Amino acid sequence: MGIKVLGIPMSTCTARVLTSLLEKEVDYELVPIDMGKGEHKSPDYLAKHPFGQIPVLQDDDLTLFESRAITSYVSYKYKDQGTDLLRIGNVKETALVGVWIEVESQQYNPAILPIVYQLVIVPMYGQSPDLAIVEAHVEKFNKVLDVYEARLSHHKYLAGDFFSLADLNHFPFTYYLMKTQYASLINDRPHVKAWWESVSSRPAFKKVAENMTLA
Amino acid sequence: MGIKVLGIPMSTCTARVLTSLLEKEVDYELVPIDMGKGEHKSPDYLAKHPFGQIPVLQDDDLTLFESRAITSYVSYKYKDQGTDLLRIGNVKETALVGVWIEVESQQYNPAILPIVYQLVIVPMYGQSPDLAIVEAHVEKFNKVLDVYEARLSHHKYLAGDFFSLADLNHFPFTYYLMKTQYASLINDRPHVKAWWESVSSRPAFKKVAENMTLA
Repeated sequence: MGIKVLGIPMSTCTARVLTSLLEKEVDYELVPIDMGKGEHKSPDYLAKHPFGQIPVLQDDDLTLFESRAITSYVSYKYKDQGTDLLRIGNVKETALVGVWIEVESQQYNPAILPIVYQLVIVPMYGQSPDLAIVEAHVEKFNKVLDVYEARLSHHKYLAGDFFSLADLNHFPFTYYLMKTQYASLINDRPHVKAWWESVSSRPAFKKVAENMTLA
Repeated sequence: MGIKVLGIPMSTCTARVLTSLLEKEVDYELVPIDMGKGEHKSPDYLAKHPFGQIPVLQDDDLTLFESRAITSYVSYKYKDQGTDLLRIGNVKETALVGVWIEVESQQYNPAILPIVYQLVIVPMYGQSPDLAIVEAHVEKFNKVLDVYEARLSHHKYLAGDFFSLADLNHFPFTYYLMKTQYASLINDRPHVKAWWESVSSRPAFKKVAENMTLA
């Protein structure tokens, strides 16, 4: 039995997981979850993911959730194939990958998520975005991106001069942000822009992005 | 040169790092940062931690920040001594530790942090807590704890029947919560209560908690 991913292609967290599988050259089957019918809140699904979110990864009898835990698992289990995402064998580089994975999780994501949610997700439900929320988080995100611009002026990628899981985890939310008027936050910072162009031109990202079509 | 931790003992994120060092039986020196004087925003400190937060860990020429990245680094580098926090060697157990590390980061922490901040930190500055924020997050935290109660009715600890880094990362915020009227959120759930009693009775936690005294 191979790896199954339970989720939907347009979901940011599903896309993060699929990208890691493609980078690691791991075959998988995407099993769609019908969120419109509340399948993610069904007893069967909640037994796999007690918080009722997507995605879930199933690898034989192992069931995992939380997209960042899954991308780390995939990167670690398949360390000897595909792109070297964790730099295992070099304790210092692995440590720096870990730092920038956490920066995405604790600094970048809390700032970008509400912007993307308001501008991309809310309109899908026929509602108007709360622009006060957007503005507050744009201010926060600007400060985060100033740190990124400084970092990326010294290194091509976040953890060093090598592409890693830290860069990969940024992909889905940034991809959607680039479809809004706030793409300028990235494009106005030359080193962040060059980083994003490098990251988003990878074949794994391009393949996953093909299916990130909003309803 | 040994390990230095730049931070203050009452800080939750500093406490998280110190607890991991004690569990791994690693000697360290705590270098106090004078936040009252804005030392964490000085150019010298920002060169170590570009977001100007605490703590920082220095291990020879390696400088790390983000407390969860640091506890993972410590657990991985010193895997052959002290408490086995990552279950390296058992890919499935390591994966489950990773899932519950992320649950703390993405589900538990965003719910508990504003409660502790309003009830414990805000009064230190002579201000009144915003009880609407507290109530909103108590509602959110209740839902998270319901998942924990179910999980801990099947396993003694979060990732399985073994203490791990996933449990450890919960310590500092829960410790402060237990000093508020919302300790009942933990105590009213028998399996969560038993888990917390087991976790908080560990010598490493008790030693770190001795210095978590609020000004």
